[in-house]
Amino acid sequence: MNDWYTENHQPDVHFSIQVKKHLYSEKTPYQQIDFYESETFGKFFTLDGLMMATEKDEFIYHEMIVHPSFAVNPQIKRVLVVGGGDGGTCRELLRYPFVESVDLVEIDERVVHLCQKYLPQTASCLANNPKVHLCFEDGLDFVQKASTASYDLIIVDSTDPIGPGEGLFTYAFYESCKRLLTEEGILINQHESPYYADDATEMKRAHSKLKKTFPIAKVYQFHMPTYPSGHWLFGFASKRLDPIKDLKAKFWEELQLPTRYYNTKLHIGAFMLPTYVKDELENA
Amino acid sequence: MNDWYTENHQPDVHFSIQVKKHLYSEKTPYQQIDFYESETFGKFFTLDGLMMATEKDEFIYHEMIVHPSFAVNPQIKRVLVVGGGDGGTCRELLRYPFVESVDLVEIDERVVHLCQKYLPQTASCLANNPKVHLCFEDGLDFVQKASTASYDLIIVDSTDPIGPGEGLFTYAFYESCKRLLTEEGILINQHESPYYADDATEMKRAHSKLKKTFPIAKVYQFHMPTYPSGHWLFGFASKRLDPIKDLKAKFWEELQLPTRYYNTKLHIGAFMLPTYVKDELENA
Repeated sequence: MNDWYTENHQPDVHFSIQVKKHLYSEKTPYQQIDFYESETFGKFFTLDGLMMATEKDEFIYHEMIVHPSFAVNPQIKRVLVVGGGDGGTCRELLRYPFVESVDLVEIDERVVHLCQKYLPQTASCLANNPKVHLCFEDGLDFVQKASTASYDLIIVDSTDPIGPGEGLFTYAFYESCKRLLTEEGILINQHESPYYADDATEMKRAHSKLKKTFPIAKVYQFHMPTYPSGHWLFGFASKRLDPIKDLKAKFWEELQLPTRYYNTKLHIGAFMLPTYVKDELENA
Repeated sequence: MNDWYTENHQPDVHFSIQVKKHLYSEKTPYQQIDFYESETFGKFFTLDGLMMATEKDEFIYHEMIVHPSFAVNPQIKRVLVVGGGDGGTCRELLRYPFVESVDLVEIDERVVHLCQKYLPQTASCLANNPKVHLCFEDGLDFVQKASTASYDLIIVDSTDPIGPGEGLFTYAFYESCKRLLTEEGILINQHESPYYADDATEMKRAHSKLKKTFPIAKVYQFHMPTYPSGHWLFGFASKRLDPIKDLKAKFWEELQLPTRYYNTKLHIGAFMLPTYVKDELENA
């Protein structure tokens, strides 16, 4: 008998995947972690019952959280990833040979170790790479304690602002990130979705705080079919660089990195938002 | 007891909506028609168990199927809609005062009459409007019989290429549309989705035929959360007009039509496709 994994995108809207095998389940001090295998999506994992990454489409999320910044600032050498314990973001970062170090601050050590075992497609890069420094600590604590403005890029690859990800959606966190970024540094953050009312509320909260903290705060969209509504957003914030005006398309294209979702035209298109999303963000 | 409407996006991927009321159900000679009411999506209707339109997000589909053409060709006066019995496409067309006539060719008269009763948000425009001519006939038959090149815009607002919509994805249909279009005419068609394998196969089939039929055949994307994967496409085909090079953004903006999804920047962005989608279309 096959089982089903069901996520409540809303109390009255359910998304279900038939499970060939429930590979692993563990309750850590921070959250419930589950790994599954399915026909359509391959292996996937969930935190507290929410979809994090599937083998089929994690490339969309991880390409879109990493590559736009590199097409805007070709000088990115030092990167901080907050969250991102599945390793997918790190994998994409390490494709740039000029990246010198990636500090990955993940609150839950078990996410990293279990993804290395069950989801090597994203997590294999986290083992034995001298550029990668794993730090198992709360992201808010880490950025508040860190002292020097030395990151060219900070990526907040977090869960929703409920549970362990909550501190990563606060003024205190964004202010610390700003302090830790170089003058041409960029902050990318998980920015929720405009479609369902509760996600849209979090989208507006995040944007309201980011635009009060950073001179430049934009939002870009992508298609993420395994997340609620499939319409997902990342924030792009910086002190100086504009994601469109400062786009260095030629530089990025000459790197000749093969990608499956991201390209420099899509980069531009991703910032062109539907009217209702623009309006909600402007009024946030 | 509340019931659930479940659509199989794939055999092993289900999307379910809790139903407050199953408003109506009828089997016509063409298909099974059902109307439901739900908390999150309001009223919605399905054909053969597939989601067609919900009160919450039909504006996305209907704005995107109509407005891009008007921003490219400001001379659109005569329009043919094939399918589109729910009236949403017609409603958006009628917002342009210079549109003189809309011929709506819908195979199933019951769709129109039931939508007028259960989904007036889209279908109320179909009653008693001297510009709207309803014709209950097979779309392929209609275009093959029609003789003069007189449409400025043909919109194929169809179901998937299985069942009654099948003929609307054939060379014979596209050739007839080309014949019926003015020199600056535009064909917009439902173009399926790149994400799940079966939808992607139909996407490629449609594109392959369109690009062999029309000198210009482009594809644009939008976020449609209640369709499988939420990543949906329309085709833009024409003899002469390019959707980007010939965009008349200023003209369209000066019309000052309030829209919730479409805007002229998003127009440009919608044609900027993910790399994997571009590749599949180029190889189609």
